[in-house]
Amino acid sequence: MQTLKIVKIGGNIINDEVALHQFLDEFALLKTPKLLVHGGGKLATQLSKTMGVATKMIDGRRVTDAATLDIATMVYAGKINKTIVGYLQSKQCNAIGFTGADGNTIVSKKRAVNPVDFGFVGDVIKVNPKILNLLLQQSITPVFCAITHDKNGQLLNTNADTIAAQLAIALVNTFKVELYYCFEKNGVLLDVEDENSLIETLNVAHYEHLKHKQVIYEGMLPKLDNCFNAIKSRVNKVGVGQPKMVFKTNSKYTKIEL
Amino acid sequence: MQTLKIVKIGGNIINDEVALHQFLDEFALLKTPKLLVHGGGKLATQLSKTMGVATKMIDGRRVTDAATLDIATMVYAGKINKTIVGYLQSKQCNAIGFTGADGNTIVSKKRAVNPVDFGFVGDVIKVNPKILNLLLQQSITPVFCAITHDKNGQLLNTNADTIAAQLAIALVNTFKVELYYCFEKNGVLLDVEDENSLIETLNVAHYEHLKHKQVIYEGMLPKLDNCFNAIKSRVNKVGVGQPKMVFKTNSKYTKIEL
Repeated sequence: MQTLKIVKIGGNIINDEVALHQFLDEFALLKTPKLLVHGGGKLATQLSKTMGVATKMIDGRRVTDAATLDIATMVYAGKINKTIVGYLQSKQCNAIGFTGADGNTIVSKKRAVNPVDFGFVGDVIKVNPKILNLLLQQSITPVFCAITHDKNGQLLNTNADTIAAQLAIALVNTFKVELYYCFEKNGVLLDVEDENSLIETLNVAHYEHLKHKQVIYEGMLPKLDNCFNAIKSRVNKVGVGQPKMVFKTNSKYTKIEL
Repeated sequence: MQTLKIVKIGGNIINDEVALHQFLDEFALLKTPKLLVHGGGKLATQLSKTMGVATKMIDGRRVTDAATLDIATMVYAGKINKTIVGYLQSKQCNAIGFTGADGNTIVSKKRAVNPVDFGFVGDVIKVNPKILNLLLQQSITPVFCAITHDKNGQLLNTNADTIAAQLAIALVNTFKVELYYCFEKNGVLLDVEDENSLIETLNVAHYEHLKHKQVIYEGMLPKLDNCFNAIKSRVNKVGVGQPKMVFKTNSKYTKIEL
């Protein structure tokens, strides 16, 4: 089977045009089939401010009301997604932008309103990989933003890390899938303040131990849950770290293991 | 060859949710391969106002500066395109949203700045139909918004009527193409105030005559130029009128002829 690299990039790259172009330049050169998933970045927050749409938070988590969903759809599926696709085209990488609604590729379910109503947020329930396989066979690079749909006409804001993991899992029957979560740190750190405290391999038992000791906490937990979900579901390789891990074989990052 | 219906809808349908859903309900039921092109509508103007981006006009035509292009990309490729795709999915029509950058399907050239600089406006120079043919064969419905790219990383605002005509022309080798321009009037009218003055068939000679007599003028000219461009380029059928012309065989509209 061919190798498929699925790369997720987040706000730290998207917010910095130089970093984004540097990343996309290398990504475009990858010879293997590839798929990009991008998060949001600060543009949506900026647009909310300009439009006078207040950011509602419950328990430190953003609530996606109708106005916020509109902004997310405009910024993620419109501005960011199409700018990335256009840039990749200029680098001879034939990309097509996707939300989960496009090709009915990712169906999600609006999160239950109990105990907290987070609004138009969707949890992935099904990935339909047929059209993605077809496009990947044609050397097309799908570029996903973090919008999905419920198949009943409702778009839903969805965690980009989860989208990357679910796409990876859905494609294991047709590709040897590698999944890379790029962010600003070297990987999973024993001390979040010390980039040299990198954990080079992290397995389930070690993860449970570090969770229990609260060495790993907050935002890293859902990301790592996605990583372990992927590696348990026959994704061939899962990495967390700086973007260079995707392109340079000798770079250090956290490799997720069973 | 199979028939492919290409339908272009404009602001009057997009601005009215009831009319839009009514149209999409019928469009989703079409048994033949189909492709939708949508214009903008008033949402972009509203967003420009909310964001305090002034609408610049030269000779009655809108200038697309960088801020306006961002808004067009967000509204056309984001909000409108994905809302339509999501709605079609809910009606069992498997749609994928496109700009011309996606799949490198439509390449355009930034309009020369002489004599007037209209900004980030692109004139179509090439359509690459391969990926569209592949998707149409899989019963996927492409949904195009009016954003293209120059293959050098620049997105460009492009006339939706031209996009529809150019897509139609690019697909004549693989389909028997029918092209429908839907708008609020019954078709081309001899008297713009009188819906009963419908011209049921319009050929090149008649069109030239009516242009000369200034019976047809302003906004209708570029639309009809696109129609005649299509019919001269082996598009099988071109119609201008109310959306019902696409769905009901006995409805009246203007049929374009050589």
